[in-house]
Amino acid sequence: MNYIGRIQRAREKMAAAGAAALCIANDAGWEYMAGLPRSGHGNTKNRQNSQEFACLLLTETRVVALSPRLSAIGFYDKMDRFPAVDELVSYPDEDLTGAGFDAVLRAAGLLGKTVAVTRDIPATMVLRLQALGCNVINMSREIDLMRAVKDEEEIALMRTASRIADDIYADMMCHVKPGMAIREIEHAIERRLEDYGAAYTSFPAEVLCHGPEAGVGVGACHPQLEVGYTLAYDYGVVYQGYCSDFGRTVFLQEPDAEMRHIHEVVMAAQKAGMEAMKAGRATGADCNRAARQVVEDAGYGEYFIHRLGHGIGKDVHEHPFLAEGEDTVLQANMCFTAEPSIYIPHKCLVRVEDVVLVTEDGYDCLNKVTKDIVVV
Amino acid sequence: MNYIGRIQRAREKMAAAGAAALCIANDAGWEYMAGLPRSGHGNTKNRQNSQEFACLLLTETRVVALSPRLSAIGFYDKMDRFPAVDELVSYPDEDLTGAGFDAVLRAAGLLGKTVAVTRDIPATMVLRLQALGCNVINMSREIDLMRAVKDEEEIALMRTASRIADDIYADMMCHVKPGMAIREIEHAIERRLEDYGAAYTSFPAEVLCHGPEAGVGVGACHPQLEVGYTLAYDYGVVYQGYCSDFGRTVFLQEPDAEMRHIHEVVMAAQKAGMEAMKAGRATGADCNRAARQVVEDAGYGEYFIHRLGHGIGKDVHEHPFLAEGEDTVLQANMCFTAEPSIYIPHKCLVRVEDVVLVTEDGYDCLNKVTKDIVVV
Repeated sequence: MNYIGRIQRAREKMAAAGAAALCIANDAGWEYMAGLPRSGHGNTKNRQNSQEFACLLLTETRVVALSPRLSAIGFYDKMDRFPAVDELVSYPDEDLTGAGFDAVLRAAGLLGKTVAVTRDIPATMVLRLQALGCNVINMSREIDLMRAVKDEEEIALMRTASRIADDIYADMMCHVKPGMAIREIEHAIERRLEDYGAAYTSFPAEVLCHGPEAGVGVGACHPQLEVGYTLAYDYGVVYQGYCSDFGRTVFLQEPDAEMRHIHEVVMAAQKAGMEAMKAGRATGADCNRAARQVVEDAGYGEYFIHRLGHGIGKDVHEHPFLAEGEDTVLQANMCFTAEPSIYIPHKCLVRVEDVVLVTEDGYDCLNKVTKDIVVV
Repeated sequence: MNYIGRIQRAREKMAAAGAAALCIANDAGWEYMAGLPRSGHGNTKNRQNSQEFACLLLTETRVVALSPRLSAIGFYDKMDRFPAVDELVSYPDEDLTGAGFDAVLRAAGLLGKTVAVTRDIPATMVLRLQALGCNVINMSREIDLMRAVKDEEEIALMRTASRIADDIYADMMCHVKPGMAIREIEHAIERRLEDYGAAYTSFPAEVLCHGPEAGVGVGACHPQLEVGYTLAYDYGVVYQGYCSDFGRTVFLQEPDAEMRHIHEVVMAAQKAGMEAMKAGRATGADCNRAARQVVEDAGYGEYFIHRLGHGIGKDVHEHPFLAEGEDTVLQANMCFTAEPSIYIPHKCLVRVEDVVLVTEDGYDCLNKVTKDIVVV
């Protein structure tokens, strides 16, 4: 990965913002900028004692990674693998007041200077910077936009992550049948991803079964597959640090004319959303409106209860979004999900989701598996 | 859960700190304080567009939950289940500048006042508060200490979470044997937890196999079980919002005298650490030192490369830690892990981990399953 190029661009943005340094959290952000492994994934927080002073600190001339010692255990003796990082400062875990952080700031001549942060920098670090006399400014939007535009290497990984999602869907078609428990299907998805080389899920796999006796609410699905119900998949994987996010709906009996119509409307809405993704011309809000218009014209507007999609890359949800109010103009090589749905309580949830690459003159849907009606 | 009591105590701490309000992030923190479901768990970030203004805002007289509409989808029409919350403000997802947040602050008369935050409040919100003229202070330590001391209801859930970890270990004993793949064992653990009523893992289950041909580094384990190697389990579950964190080491052949001795040293270190957990008298650093002393006296000090343990509750790692530099004095009803280890590259990793409840006059180890040597 071209970490040197990314750091160079970040420095240009720092200069434009008048910042002498930039702090990036030790999550997907520092993985993006310098290749360092992001801090522990998982369902609850498992940080170390003084984790809130962990960050990648970019100055005009140096790149310093700060980490409590215990969190650096996986890479502290392998820093030759991260040549973009000039120095690792693995401060003691017991450094609860940030003395190690202070020392790095002082050595870099940053006391009293303007220091930029991104949104995931925790309150503790912001307040510490200010206590050191720094003027803290928010550079989230600039770094978001950098991460949003993928390079060739990233696009290749995004393609593979989406292909793995496709392959799992094709596998699942042969396996699911009425009577199966929802959790059994979710587990099967989560097990299978490693066979295809993915590391783990990008978010917990969700399989939603809706129909006459299902509870009300998108998350309140029926616990097992029932004849006549809809089965909506929503899952994604992380492949070499990049995410997929995928959705299809299958029918648990031959759909009637109304169900077929709803399915058609959802697919048409997705297509309209994708076709609206014009580099240099459309905003996130434009794309969202294009998809929503199709659903509204068909009379199902009130059943499409969310936005068209979100950016995706190292995190499954990244800025910018394809949503009302998003005035960022799309650029070539940005990746978004396109995920319209129609949810009618006690009747059905029909959704589709693909990852879409914006190209110079159109779009490329990274998921290639069929969107035709499937009955299981 | 006694949310009203918790909010009352938080208000007392606010008053003592001179804060007119307190912002708690929409993670385990607002689940603890008001019962609201924490925002999406999972391996990468899946927040919504304007998630950084989501929080529980406590003022002297009101409790307001702020959330982007799409994140509130699971509870916005069920607020009668959360009587501790006076009002839910579900602002539009497109509210990227925090206009909804500003309006709530203004209506509460907080502009220009002192507002406290905890460490997980993102930089964006801190900077927004300051732009509104608020003096932002850090109340992490006070809220950490509230969360650290568990009530009866929480202790019952902590017991169950640890019992589930025990039960899984007992199950696994019958299943593991030389030749099995590490990932197969990790999957088996992750599948089994739901049979016992747990929701998901508290962190990704880790099974580490060490011996002559294993890589170097705690995380660099051998990919399958080999005769003569050690197999160290590290996993935990979340049961009704509370975590366990558990470890045992089994031997893949009858251990020789040295291995038996190492095992004994680790168990003795854990016991010394637990016996040091005296409410009102010992600090986190004292407990850490008591355990470390045993390992050092046995000549293995350099192979015990981390602290004794960490607080545990709604997150798997919580403050305070049982670590050098931690001067917090233990109180009855705090929960900690006690997890010494001896890791000798190319030889073995022997570790044990239990969750320990500090009592008025001693301690109660919440894991009850055997610590005797097991050979599989």
